[in-house]
Amino acid sequence: MLASAPASSANLGPGFDALALALDRSIEVEVEPASHLIVRSEGEGAGLSDNASHLAAKVAIEVAGHDRLAITVRSEIPVARGLGSSAALAVAAAAAAGSPDPLAVAARVDGHPENAAASVVGGLVSACTIRGQVHVVRLGLDDELEFVLIVPERTLPTKSARQALPAQIDREDAIFNIGRMGMLVAGLADHRFLTHEATEDRLHQAYRTPLFPEAPSLLAALEDGGARAACWSGAGPSLLGMCGPDEVERVERAARDALESEGVPGQVLRLQADRRGLVVGEAARNLRRGRVDRSAGRSNPAS
Amino acid sequence: MLASAPASSANLGPGFDALALALDRSIEVEVEPASHLIVRSEGEGAGLSDNASHLAAKVAIEVAGHDRLAITVRSEIPVARGLGSSAALAVAAAAAAGSPDPLAVAARVDGHPENAAASVVGGLVSACTIRGQVHVVRLGLDDELEFVLIVPERTLPTKSARQALPAQIDREDAIFNIGRMGMLVAGLADHRFLTHEATEDRLHQAYRTPLFPEAPSLLAALEDGGARAACWSGAGPSLLGMCGPDEVERVERAARDALESEGVPGQVLRLQADRRGLVVGEAARNLRRGRVDRSAGRSNPAS
Repeated sequence: MLASAPASSANLGPGFDALALALDRSIEVEVEPASHLIVRSEGEGAGLSDNASHLAAKVAIEVAGHDRLAITVRSEIPVARGLGSSAALAVAAAAAAGSPDPLAVAARVDGHPENAAASVVGGLVSACTIRGQVHVVRLGLDDELEFVLIVPERTLPTKSARQALPAQIDREDAIFNIGRMGMLVAGLADHRFLTHEATEDRLHQAYRTPLFPEAPSLLAALEDGGARAACWSGAGPSLLGMCGPDEVERVERAARDALESEGVPGQVLRLQADRRGLVVGEAARNLRRGRVDRSAGRSNPAS
Repeated sequence: MLASAPASSANLGPGFDALALALDRSIEVEVEPASHLIVRSEGEGAGLSDNASHLAAKVAIEVAGHDRLAITVRSEIPVARGLGSSAALAVAAAAAAGSPDPLAVAARVDGHPENAAASVVGGLVSACTIRGQVHVVRLGLDDELEFVLIVPERTLPTKSARQALPAQIDREDAIFNIGRMGMLVAGLADHRFLTHEATEDRLHQAYRTPLFPEAPSLLAALEDGGARAACWSGAGPSLLGMCGPDEVERVERAARDALESEGVPGQVLRLQADRRGLVVGEAARNLRRGRVDRSAGRSNPAS
């Protein structure tokens, strides 16, 4: 079976460990019967661990109950950059191996229900785990929003990003985030109401900055370049600019300039929200054909 | 000038100090020129302080810049019950005295921007104060939702309710509220997605329970009676049940039964959301006529 799941940006500033947004870069997993375990990988993260230790293999073996599987992973999602690649991989692997509940499998193995939820449902979601069950709601997301992602050429493992956070916080900081989250939800539903303040946060971003000292300047560059709001993508190091339709090109240029002036190697991606979420079977195959045609068209416009 | 502003329920469980919902009970303030200060009050809170110390007088005098005013207050909003009566009063008094920005005035004197915002804008709002300015966004609110309020016959001043809260909290508790707030915003926008878990909270309700020990039983009675979700209204002691259209009568009965079985004197109100917010001048006069006709019709159905 073939399954495809999108990347995601979690947290989005104030919505720490709750909000996530699916983005139109995807990971594809194909699982077929075989005489013994075969793992192949292409694209982002290719060849890192083409064996039973690959997350796709672990998930597929658990779901299938055996390891007589040929697993192929094709990814467009940069690894360990805060773009939900492991949640998307787990979702796609669970679905490709025939799981009836890829969300539950992925939330458990990846530990991030909000990323997994965005990869399954698509769009903007809020998720939390209640008595072991992942609860997901979809929130309104303005069709006109576009996203500029700064993806630095460095990894920032989620684990060390999380260890930077204190166990106790000021009540006022929690109230701060709750108020900003209200503004953010309204602004994502209608970008005309989205303001810089909507992505302000006191629970995680500032604590993580020592791991990525250039982040504040890059975030400021996104906003100065015209983004309605900007925030860390997940635990970073990727940074997300949320843009209205008239701003996105200017923001893209500002992001490239800022990477250069800060001396941070990396790439800038201009992405749309993904509204499909997990796609399985023939539909995933059609999606892939669309992508291959598009990229062939791009690399050889004369053809 | 005549102005009318609705009651409001703030917090709504996880949305501490941010969310508020306007409800269709209102307070009316009329301010007219006079040779010296005259304060009259009717309805809820009547006669408590018919002089310069009345909040309506303080606000109107500040806005007008003098005290040669005749001020009449007519209120349907129980006082000090967590129904935003002082925010609504301040909003209506500021508007009736000619303030160009009743929200700013009321948020400052009342200290609760979310209640004041709901009283000005109506519907469901999220508000916070940023660099001294109140920022308000409206959030989606399902037309089919109705509300059952338990209003105990006891007061619970906001100040002591707030002193019960710790200055430091666990980060996990903040994350808990952020996740529940996502569920709540989705559930209030579409009641079919509203669940008991959406109003769970770890920042204020449990800390305030010693001030109102019967609250957990009464909240459980609202939910057991069919409410989709239930929470404290503001700092209490009123409790709010959020109901779909088919549940509201059953919830109302359950609330009355629970007040009786808990031995708590009080009333049960069945309310709609208010979507008008602040109404000024002739429109406020028309609103009053509608209310008077309705209540005359109720008290004497034969007329």
